[in-house]
Amino acid sequence: MPGVDAADEFETIERLFRPLAHPEWGRGLIDDVAALPSRPGYDLILTKDAMVEGVHFLPDDPLDTVARKLLRVNLSDLAAKGAEPFGYLLACFWPEASGWLEREAFAAGLAEDQVKFGVHLLGGDTVVTPGPASFSLTALGWVPHGRAVARAGAQPGDLIVVTGMIGDGILGLKAARGELGLEDERVAALTAHYRTPEPRVDFALAVREHAAAALDVSDGLIADMGHMASASGVGILIDLEKLPLSRAATAWFETRVDPVAALTELATGGDDYEIVMAVPPAAVEGLKRAADASHLRLTVLGAATQGEGVTVRHGGEVVPVKTTGWRHG
Amino acid sequence: MPGVDAADEFETIERLFRPLAHPEWGRGLIDDVAALPSRPGYDLILTKDAMVEGVHFLPDDPLDTVARKLLRVNLSDLAAKGAEPFGYLLACFWPEASGWLEREAFAAGLAEDQVKFGVHLLGGDTVVTPGPASFSLTALGWVPHGRAVARAGAQPGDLIVVTGMIGDGILGLKAARGELGLEDERVAALTAHYRTPEPRVDFALAVREHAAAALDVSDGLIADMGHMASASGVGILIDLEKLPLSRAATAWFETRVDPVAALTELATGGDDYEIVMAVPPAAVEGLKRAADASHLRLTVLGAATQGEGVTVRHGGEVVPVKTTGWRHG
Repeated sequence: MPGVDAADEFETIERLFRPLAHPEWGRGLIDDVAALPSRPGYDLILTKDAMVEGVHFLPDDPLDTVARKLLRVNLSDLAAKGAEPFGYLLACFWPEASGWLEREAFAAGLAEDQVKFGVHLLGGDTVVTPGPASFSLTALGWVPHGRAVARAGAQPGDLIVVTGMIGDGILGLKAARGELGLEDERVAALTAHYRTPEPRVDFALAVREHAAAALDVSDGLIADMGHMASASGVGILIDLEKLPLSRAATAWFETRVDPVAALTELATGGDDYEIVMAVPPAAVEGLKRAADASHLRLTVLGAATQGEGVTVRHGGEVVPVKTTGWRHG
Repeated sequence: MPGVDAADEFETIERLFRPLAHPEWGRGLIDDVAALPSRPGYDLILTKDAMVEGVHFLPDDPLDTVARKLLRVNLSDLAAKGAEPFGYLLACFWPEASGWLEREAFAAGLAEDQVKFGVHLLGGDTVVTPGPASFSLTALGWVPHGRAVARAGAQPGDLIVVTGMIGDGILGLKAARGELGLEDERVAALTAHYRTPEPRVDFALAVREHAAAALDVSDGLIADMGHMASASGVGILIDLEKLPLSRAATAWFETRVDPVAALTELATGGDDYEIVMAVPPAAVEGLKRAADASHLRLTVLGAATQGEGVTVRHGGEVVPVKTTGWRHG
């Protein structure tokens, strides 16, 4: 509808987003389009995630971290496919009551992570909504032609390997909500992980070189393993006691009376943004060397098998897992 | 946040969106990413527009037409750059109360226009919102390398030429709101134009071959001419009495007491989705032949000049235009 909050959206683009634009391909955000030269020998990888206040982030989350998380969850998707990110398009739905402070914080968060991850804004749209703050981001990356790592591709006998730690996503959500009775330092670390997870961008090349299948842990480790199992036509076996836990997660775990329930909660929580891979046994050594080189922890959690679905074990006993933590957000 | 309206979003993708996916590049929507092979010699053109219920479309608008309009306004952006569309990514924010009927209608609208315009869904996200229905679409098209038509590029002496009719966008909005006292047939035609404007996709090649600068009329003809003038560093002169009016717009115009005010309203209303171009005099003949071949009306509205800004005239007299109908949506 013409004329809605007109100058504001124009100024938002002019003052906050234009400085973030790719110097060449974003056309200074003047043209409502980006123009991207082809890169022969490479495929363009595109992914899109949306976030809504009160659903995917908390009303209390600072908007600079919301912007960074939005960018990072998309970069995480690219990294899990073995792609090198370079840019993004952004749609902002600002609540009617939102002012310059919120928008400036949001743009500042983007600016910070653009430098950190070497990406630029290519275009987008900014509108006003009577609803909650909402955002949608389309991230773009390059991968050598045909080398994008799919969810399909796991073979029986492949090892299931994950980067970093599992469980800080769901514990971070609890921490940000004030639901965790841990020391302040732990709560701060977990909240920070929830608000600005670390996408494994630097590990994309290793994923591409060594993994047969991969995806990032966003819906929850077990749900995501379910996606891989179903896309690959294999079964996947996970040993819960192998879950790599951060120091904060370990501190939480030690307060729980039921260790299996606690580990299951961490394995179904989601929002971890680690990369979980199916790796042929012969390729594990190379993957580990790459992880060592970037000081990244790797953990073998189980294996792909004949069959279907995800089997979760603890101490060799099968654990029934009811909720798989599925979501699409 | 894990688990929000889980199965519903999964089923939405599985049942409604997977059938719309590009057979190859969309990876069956299984991978959360699209993988697009490079097309050497071509630039990829990307554009993104967002729409919110109650802001950019009416709560009464059928959701199949909302989907089609969302796709079409993006295709219109591509056409004005001379690009040939092939695909899109989509983010849907569904209200908590929305059910299958709404989602099915939305997907049916996309399916219809995918066939009409030869495009496919490449990926996206679908989430639930406590706010109004909102959508964001990133459209992709190809253009030979370096041949995207910019807003910048108009030279003094170029003619300002527009496709189709001007004013049906704003009159269509009035019609859809029940604010027009015209015959039913006129109201229906205008409402249809508002809900499913006709992007000039088939004219993209002609734009690329003949126009020095171009954009689509979305903010309002005069505001959009302001964008072109400022991007190109020229002035633009528009003669209001030359505005091409549809039969329905003519019927409305004849009911107005102040013809200049009426024409100004049509020239600032927006939502027309015609292509307005700066065309070197020597290129006008070629552009007209292309328009004749596709039975598309072309109208010379004025010219680019030395100077800056948009000058609007009627019968040779300068008309002061206060509202430029600017928006970004």
